[in-house]
Amino acid sequence: MDDHVYKVVELVGSSETSIEDAIQTAIRRAGQTLRNLRWFEVIQTRGHVENGEVRHYQVVLKAGFTLEPD
Amino acid sequence: MDDHVYKVVELVGSSETSIEDAIQTAIRRAGQTLRNLRWFEVIQTRGHVENGEVRHYQVVLKAGFTLEPD
Amino acid sequence: MDDHVYKVVELVGSSETSIEDAIQTAIRRAGQTLRNLRWFEVIQTRGHVENGEVRHYQVVLKAGFTLEPD
Amino acid sequence: MDDHVYKVVELVGSSETSIEDAIQTAIRRAGQTLRNLRWFEVIQTRGHVENGEVRHYQVVLKAGFTLEPD
Amino acid sequence: MDDHVYKVVELVGSSETSIEDAIQTAIRRAGQTLRNLRWFEVIQTRGHVENGEVRHYQVVLKAGFTLEPD
Amino acid sequence: MDDHVYKVVELVGSSETSIEDAIQTAIRRAGQTLRNLRWFEVIQTRGHVENGEVRHYQVVLKAGFTLEPD
Amino acid sequence: MDDHVYKVVELVGSSETSIEDAIQTAIRRAGQTLRNLRWFEVIQTRGHVENGEVRHYQVVLKAGFTLEPD
Amino acid sequence: MDDHVYKVVELVGSSETSIEDAIQTAIRRAGQTLRNLRWFEVIQTRGHVENGEVRHYQVVLKAGFTLEPD
Amino acid sequence: MDDHVYKVVELVGSSETSIEDAIQTAIRRAGQTLRNLRWFEVIQTRGHVENGEVRHYQVVLKAGFTLEPD
Amino acid sequence: MDDHVYKVVELVGSSETSIEDAIQTAIRRAGQTLRNLRWFEVIQTRGHVENGEVRHYQVVLKAGFTLEPD
Amino acid sequence: MDDHVYKVVELVGSSETSIEDAIQTAIRRAGQTLRNLRWFEVIQTRGHVENGEVRHYQVVLKAGFTLEPD
Amino acid sequence: MDDHVYKVVELVGSSETSIEDAIQTAIRRAGQTLRNLRWFEVIQTRGHVENGEVRHYQVVLKAGFTLEPD
Repeated sequence: MDDHVYKVVELVGSSETSIEDAIQTAIRRAGQTLRNLRWFEVIQTRGHVENGEVRHYQVVLKAGFTLEPD
Repeated sequence: MDDHVYKVVELVGSSETSIEDAIQTAIRRAGQTLRNLRWFEVIQTRGHVENGEVRHYQVVLKAGFTLEPD
Repeated sequence: MDDHVYKVVELVGSSETSIEDAIQTAIRRAGQTLRNLRWFEVIQTRGHVENGEVRHYQVVLKAGFTLEPD
Repeated sequence: MDDHVYKVVELVGSSETSIEDAIQTAIRRAGQTLRNLRWFEVIQTRGHVENGEVRHYQVVLKAGFTLEPD
Repeated sequence: MDDHVYKVVELVGSSETSIEDAIQTAIRRAGQTLRNLRWFEVIQTRGHVENGEVRHYQVVLKAGFTLEPD
Repeated sequence: MDDHVYKVVELVGSSETSIEDAIQTAIRRAGQTLRNLRWFEVIQTRGHVENGEVRHYQVVLKAGFTLEPD
Repeated sequence: MDDHVYKVVELVGSSETSIEDAIQTAIRRAGQTLRNLRWFEVIQTRGHVENGEVRHYQVVLKAGFTLEPD
Repeated sequence: MDDHVYKVVELVGSSETSIEDAIQTAIRRAGQTLRNLRWFEVIQTRGHVENGEVRHYQVVLKAGFTLEPD
Repeated sequence: MDDHVYKVVELVGSSETSIEDAIQTAIRRAGQTLRNLRWFEVIQTRGHVENGEVRHYQVVLKAGFTLEPD
Repeated sequence: MDDHVYKVVELVGSSETSIEDAIQTAIRRAGQTLRNLRWFEVIQTRGHVENGEVRHYQVVLKAGFTLEPD
Repeated sequence: MDDHVYKVVELVGSSETSIEDAIQTAIRRAGQTLRNLRWFEVIQTRGHVENGEVRHYQVVLKAGFTLEPD
Repeated sequence: MDDHVYKVVELVGSSETSIEDAIQTAIRRAGQTLRNLRWFEVIQTRGHVENGEVRHYQVVLKAGFTLEPD
């Protein structure tokens, strides 16, 4: 992180396949409206269970973006 | 929580009558601009005192809403 | 707490009316199978929102009961 | 909070009826010796159970008061 | 999470291949005796090392199940 | 910890003599019904005071046991 | 804090000279789009090092603003 | 804990012999001015080292006493 | 910290100029009634904003003093 | 963990492909100078974003090794 | 702690007899290579169980030493 | 932070003048033996008091350096 001013948002993404895919789902969706996303941090990892199997993973993220344009 | 992407915002509401009313005050006010609010989590409960009596309760919430429309 | 050995369980109760009612719902339901419940501690308070209104409160509790009979 | 110097004390209050009443019980009792109480923050919410019912709520608070007189 | 009463248990699962597989191992094993598992939350991720390589991943979970039957 | 699946329970033990004895009291009592206890972790250490002297120590533990038989 | 509803945002500011300047940099930049900023809380203080010297300080803040206009 | 109002104080005690003795040292000293001490909770355990040996243990406690007389 | 018994108090100080000055303001004010203050620890740093500028810094401290006279 | 004395180090590893690979990268690199690594614990999971895609994962670990030789 | 620069290391010690002995075991072993150890802080207390009895205590410590010689 | 492997050390620095100077004191002293220091994070801010005045500030830091040479 350099000397920009960042704003940090909290996001929740989910995936049926992996924790990494749940992270990417959240980052891509947020990237549609927030340009200049720079980093993320995982706050919580959880998920749902159906019939004794993991149905999907759900990841809570903080993600930072620069307030200045590129 | 299903497989939507959520964004989470932090809110502070207050009430002279109860903790529940402080929660509802924040949720209703936020709902004027954030459609699709789905859940909240209480982060902190506090309040102000005047003349030795509780003057109002103040609740800090995280609230999540889907980024997709209903 | 006196010199008994306690076991502690984690419970989630909910209510459409208040945080206190969500606590009581969890304690009463757990009391059907766990005799000798003695105390509880609130771990988290959260809830669901529908159409911009709080739909119900949900409280995560730890509750302790003595391993010895009364 | 303005530019006074505050001292913060920790209190535990209880009530058979509600969390809010447990807060008020602690604030009123502390107010008998601490003038200038200004705010509180709930640190923990717990309680006792008797015969499978909540017997009373117990709330741990931090409460701040100005060191200067009004 | 809807308006059921949940009980929450803590589990530790492990896997030689991935964090997700360690989660599934714990959920499947617990599901043999706990019907109605609904969700999990990862509390800690750790593992063992042998000869400078990760030998297996170990994940500590909380998992919630409804106290009522389906 | 090897590659078993563990379940973790929370216990409270007490002793008039020492923190170690409070731990042992909880482990022994739990061991009457939970075979295969493997490890514990101290979550909280507290106690009661009478007439200005420590009356007994009370220790909150998490304890893990394998779900498989030995 | 009085009885307004607040929204809380998370910001990161930086400065080559001091922690206070990093706070002010974030508050001023955020104030260009968020009117009615009222308070902040420092969440984390960190920084970068170059050639064995502190290159700049970086401060993560939460900042609250009223949802109502002044 | 019953339905009294408690005040909680934070204390640091030390001992050259054991953690339990450090707790007792703090409780006894505090008991000279605070009657009605009822319980304590250990917040932190630390100590000093001299010439590669533990010189003394130091325990940070919270201790609660009733505001009402016995 | 040597082998005295300490009592720890929580204080809030503020300053328009710096975090260090807010600390000193709290320590000096507390020192008028608490002799033998020995150390402090910063618990929280926050502040107020007016017209988009930091109006003052506010620091929450724990401060320890020996119960014995010097 | 048996009765050895362990030293614990903190490491940060990264990977473009997965969280598990970031863990392995850190463990392998540390293993070049620290023999006898035995276990790790994930402290934080984060990463960088470029053009709206996750560029790499970064994992902060604690890793323990025995001070005695094998 | 005076105005030296300290480095802090994390250690794990164990003992079959007591928590204090586990602390001393770690401090003595570390003292063979780290001169100038000054203080420690207990981060976690845990242990192993065999046949329903505590087999040994294990204590995780942070320990600080001056970077300058005495 | 890019894709290097980092090691993180914990340091304590102090200064009679400011928190920033205490950070720089620790970073400079550590930089004499640890080349490639890249970032720091403040873990705790505290200090000593003499005669009712702040005598010096003491800052606990985590600092990261690349394991590879530049």
